[in-house]
Amino acid sequence: MTIADLDVVAVGNAIVDIIAAAEDTLIEAEGLTKGGMQLVDAARADALYAKMGTAHEISGGSAANTIAGMAALGRKCGFIGQVADDQFGKVFAHDIRAIGVEFTTEVRGEEPPTAQCLIFVTPDGQRTMNTFLGASQFLPAKALDKTMIERAGVLYLEGYLWDPEEPRAAMREAIAIAKNAGRKVAFTLSDNFVISRHGDDFRALLNDGSIDILFANDGEIRTLMGTDDLEAAVAVAAPLVDILVVTRSEEGALAIKDGARYEVAAEPIEKVIDTTGAGDLFAAGFLAGQAEGRSIADSLTMGAICAAEIISHYGPRPEADLRELVAARLG
Amino acid sequence: MTIADLDVVAVGNAIVDIIAAAEDTLIEAEGLTKGGMQLVDAARADALYAKMGTAHEISGGSAANTIAGMAALGRKCGFIGQVADDQFGKVFAHDIRAIGVEFTTEVRGEEPPTAQCLIFVTPDGQRTMNTFLGASQFLPAKALDKTMIERAGVLYLEGYLWDPEEPRAAMREAIAIAKNAGRKVAFTLSDNFVISRHGDDFRALLNDGSIDILFANDGEIRTLMGTDDLEAAVAVAAPLVDILVVTRSEEGALAIKDGARYEVAAEPIEKVIDTTGAGDLFAAGFLAGQAEGRSIADSLTMGAICAAEIISHYGPRPEADLRELVAARLG
Repeated sequence: MTIADLDVVAVGNAIVDIIAAAEDTLIEAEGLTKGGMQLVDAARADALYAKMGTAHEISGGSAANTIAGMAALGRKCGFIGQVADDQFGKVFAHDIRAIGVEFTTEVRGEEPPTAQCLIFVTPDGQRTMNTFLGASQFLPAKALDKTMIERAGVLYLEGYLWDPEEPRAAMREAIAIAKNAGRKVAFTLSDNFVISRHGDDFRALLNDGSIDILFANDGEIRTLMGTDDLEAAVAVAAPLVDILVVTRSEEGALAIKDGARYEVAAEPIEKVIDTTGAGDLFAAGFLAGQAEGRSIADSLTMGAICAAEIISHYGPRPEADLRELVAARLG
Repeated sequence: MTIADLDVVAVGNAIVDIIAAAEDTLIEAEGLTKGGMQLVDAARADALYAKMGTAHEISGGSAANTIAGMAALGRKCGFIGQVADDQFGKVFAHDIRAIGVEFTTEVRGEEPPTAQCLIFVTPDGQRTMNTFLGASQFLPAKALDKTMIERAGVLYLEGYLWDPEEPRAAMREAIAIAKNAGRKVAFTLSDNFVISRHGDDFRALLNDGSIDILFANDGEIRTLMGTDDLEAAVAVAAPLVDILVVTRSEEGALAIKDGARYEVAAEPIEKVIDTTGAGDLFAAGFLAGQAEGRSIADSLTMGAICAAEIISHYGPRPEADLRELVAARLG
């Protein structure tokens, strides 16, 4: 059996975020769902970009952000995702490798360009995302680095990437590779729109034991379980997985393992600047805690610490020393 | 005669900055001149990028930053600079247009790519720049928007762009267009390396009365005038122009007009995060003050306010409301 010398390998969208401040009036005028993510085609992306103010470009992608956060916490990780042969592709690859993440997916040498996400951040810090998936939606199963997946204790999958067909097939194959190698599979539900389109798939994966660790936010777990009641949703979902983690924004987060329930409050922060990546970094902290052999309670605290750091500045990649922040709290 | 419905039109490099934090040891190991700018070719840029940590991409370019700052202060401006047909070119064009600047230079549909500047920011906030000029160095004279130049009260030229041949010829033509239209010409010396290569040109421009407003920092004006003594350099340079502005980092700035000397202290700020764009934004504040009909002293204060804002965060484009900052101080 391969030695698990990597903590986590993720399969996710390889995206460069284009982030700008925006007024609520723009969100309304453009008919965007505030706080949500919507897929856009190239023409709509161009039209929205034209409405956007001066922006910053920062590498993003939900699972990639999680992996970047784990690397910042000192964990050894890999990432699998599809970029094109262009400047944003170089930016994405550079940024993820710069923090020591193994990223071996071959560049795709044809149209469309590397995925871009136009993120409007309103004065309350809420982010509204508009994703042009570009090359990312063409991640083929043959691009999977089988050995890398076998080397990782946990395979982490991004729900967003379940939507396009090729990556969905790739992720099914990744699950099989991980399971055959005796690894755990973690899954994040990502967004209600994905659940509305692929809820049956997700419930099937849960029912057949494919998912060991499930990440969701409050709204997502309720949507997936078809109930308005968080507790009812948790009661149904928890027994289907080894660990269920539910994030609840400013109300903190909870986890259920072996029938026991753990809760953590949100970290107090001075001012929410940009919530982009909050859930991604919560997952990073939690998974890093688990990789370090910490308790569920402490892993939740690590998640809360990382989420608080990420929402205190623009962009979904850590800027402060996460290890120091965790050490100051948990030792 | 054309009505001057624009305050300033600048001719400058069209660059996207790639900005990352770096330790001083890296600056030393790579043999970089801390605080300086050096030109790099594509291979060297790739090698330096590989040494760089996770980065942010933000539109830059010295004169473009100045114009962005002026637009943020409510002035009407134009920009002339060369981008290529690629993602960074789109980013640059978007960001400058998003703040209301007229930017009509046609995209250059061939190699090399849009200019990029790798900026290492050390813990003291100092920036060390490595510029791959790419498409920017091929700005041809025929790309000049003659009408736009004639419409602007001031033509602003970036010394950096004097180095490559085509833009140098373009800037000479721009000066002629502006002068024929009865406009003023402002020039920023940019960096000692440019002066070491083109000092004779700059002195000739000063001597023949081509430059009305000269921006320099302490070191640049001394290099240009061939003396270690700032006062001696100022004494020689000031009579050659209508207004001489010399910035002195934390020691503030001075201006000489009609033999009278004006000084301003640097604005106190909590912590210098990144000095990238400090001089550019000082020029923005000063020129905006002049366009508003303010005194030299108040224009210097506006420069100091804008410089302080830009060094309090990463990147050379304003993030706070500059108009509010100025209004709070000067009304």
